[in-house]
Amino acid sequence: MEEQGLLLVLSGPSGVGKGTVKSAIVAKKAFPFEYSVSMTTRQPRPGEVDGKDYYFVSEERFQKAIANHELLEYNEYVGHHYGTPLAPLRKMLQDGIDVLLEIDVNGARRVREQFPDGVFIFLTPPDLQTLKQRITNRGTDSAAVIDKRMRQARNEILMMADYDYAVVNDEVDRAVTRISDIVTAEHVSVKRVLATYQAMVKED
Amino acid sequence: MEEQGLLLVLSGPSGVGKGTVKSAIVAKKAFPFEYSVSMTTRQPRPGEVDGKDYYFVSEERFQKAIANHELLEYNEYVGHHYGTPLAPLRKMLQDGIDVLLEIDVNGARRVREQFPDGVFIFLTPPDLQTLKQRITNRGTDSAAVIDKRMRQARNEILMMADYDYAVVNDEVDRAVTRISDIVTAEHVSVKRVLATYQAMVKED
Repeated sequence: MEEQGLLLVLSGPSGVGKGTVKSAIVAKKAFPFEYSVSMTTRQPRPGEVDGKDYYFVSEERFQKAIANHELLEYNEYVGHHYGTPLAPLRKMLQDGIDVLLEIDVNGARRVREQFPDGVFIFLTPPDLQTLKQRITNRGTDSAAVIDKRMRQARNEILMMADYDYAVVNDEVDRAVTRISDIVTAEHVSVKRVLATYQAMVKED
Repeated sequence: MEEQGLLLVLSGPSGVGKGTVKSAIVAKKAFPFEYSVSMTTRQPRPGEVDGKDYYFVSEERFQKAIANHELLEYNEYVGHHYGTPLAPLRKMLQDGIDVLLEIDVNGARRVREQFPDGVFIFLTPPDLQTLKQRITNRGTDSAAVIDKRMRQARNEILMMADYDYAVVNDEVDRAVTRISDIVTAEHVSVKRVLATYQAMVKED
């Protein structure tokens, strides 16, 4: 009785620090997981390796992937397409490997449709003031842009209802510990391990 | 917006080591919680303090508590009654205090009826052989008694389906860590914190 890997979806409002938290999980080796390698139409940057950092593809190939339902979700950012290939993801989960997706809230919603048993973690700002401060401190945006981001953040916090966990990103290390504890807890949740135990009692 | 405390219910097959794990949680201060003080009709042992170790009461008082629905659950053990008073438990949870109940599987089932949102943790033996070994090593029981316990254990493992988590008691320290992680994860589960966040967005 092989247990499936967990699909860990890390999402949250823009500016909350998803990327920083993901990097800290990797740096601290907080728990074992593999990345889902995204497909993109943008050019490789120096040092980026095809098939490791991204699958670098043409726009034509990307459109074909969409048409063939090869992608779990995709989006456009600054004129380039980014998507999550479905087949390698399913394979890793079936092999019992946990997979981490760091993704925006719209992408997370689409992932939930196809992986209702995923572990959906919403990264939240300690409070909206802190979020505003963080966005302001970037120092590159106008008041109108900041206001728009704040409205968006309010909406995104309300989206939290569709997630399993809400982890406050007050300090990155604490957020990482909480996420690590969630992974441990999910691995011993009855809904995930019951079949294994039922087989154990039968075999004896 | 005050968050309610968690009702943590630690249960599992007889012989699995519930008491040892509970003691280790206390000794290691793995996470903060308060006990629910049980009501009992047995005599105090030397050093036991009424209202701290137990509420020591007469059989008449205990029967009145049952009749008045003052007890969350109760059972009889070696001719004495033991029960969990409901009012102090509810008060602690409302005050945001986590409460730990270490209880047999029948008691846990009755607790679930009244506290469906409790965190129900089933402590499991690494496998049935290990359980049998542990029971045999007590050295005081006949083969017939051991066989009966094994059948009971099989049934109890099937009961796991009604729990939220199944924690293997392979090593006490590891079991305690897993339980501690479950408590952290439950404290950030969206179903428990959503109302707080909704209030935060409204207030801003």
